[in-house]
Amino acid sequence: MLAQAGDAWTFLILREAFFGVRRFDQFQANLGAAPNILTDRLKKLVANGLLTRHRYQERPARSEYRLARKGLDLYPVIVMMMRWGDRWLDEGRGAPLLLEHTPCGRISRPVVACDCCGAPIAAGDMAWRPGPGARAPRSRSKRSR
Amino acid sequence: MLAQAGDAWTFLILREAFFGVRRFDQFQANLGAAPNILTDRLKKLVANGLLTRHRYQERPARSEYRLARKGLDLYPVIVMMMRWGDRWLDEGRGAPLLLEHTPCGRISRPVVACDCCGAPIAAGDMAWRPGPGARAPRSRSKRSR
Repeated sequence: MLAQAGDAWTFLILREAFFGVRRFDQFQANLGAAPNILTDRLKKLVANGLLTRHRYQERPARSEYRLARKGLDLYPVIVMMMRWGDRWLDEGRGAPLLLEHTPCGRISRPVVACDCCGAPIAAGDMAWRPGPGARAPRSRSKRSR
Repeated sequence: MLAQAGDAWTFLILREAFFGVRRFDQFQANLGAAPNILTDRLKKLVANGLLTRHRYQERPARSEYRLARKGLDLYPVIVMMMRWGDRWLDEGRGAPLLLEHTPCGRISRPVVACDCCGAPIAAGDMAWRPGPGARAPRSRSKRSR
């Protein structure tokens, strides 16, 4: 994301999209964003392939915004950001939203897990090495801390 | 994050910190950020409790920046952003970094999983309900899309 979805409004728009919001008015009502900012961020999200725009009414012209595959793939990022916010930004009120994992039927507090062994991962358990897409060597230590 | 770690530079600084970077010069060399921008973002990260600043030399005065608990807790977000970038931004070159999960010894491609049943989660499998910290009702549908 970052270059493509890097600012706070952009993230919030995507979060709303994951909760079913599709229309400009709904985004605006939920986020309290100024219309010019919202218009700009929606345009960028469409240009970057994260949302697609669909005309649903001609007179007056009205469009809705749906998550494209590239945007849908950000779901794990959004969920882990929510979890972080639940822990650090809840101001003692508790989580604003609870997620139910419908296949197992329980309230889920998703974790990031190793795809090989299934264990939840911690920064201290991860080492790294340059991958096939590595560029020039960089200044840093060998371990995630 | 967002309000507290919302812009692209901020995210990139945190990512470098997870790979062991602590000093201003290293951040600058790896990120190519203008010094005034880097100084500003580091200050904000310290003010928001994501990094702590430690003086390691007096003359001339030099400080290093370490991840605080609140910053360390962003590791799952950073990892899932990297995974997204590997998929969507690799320009055909492959992942720039490979992560090894040292407890199991394999190259890991971490996933977000339900903490109850362990299954990887998808947006379409998650329903939501207001939690204890919910504010006013919002305009949206009942399912993560």
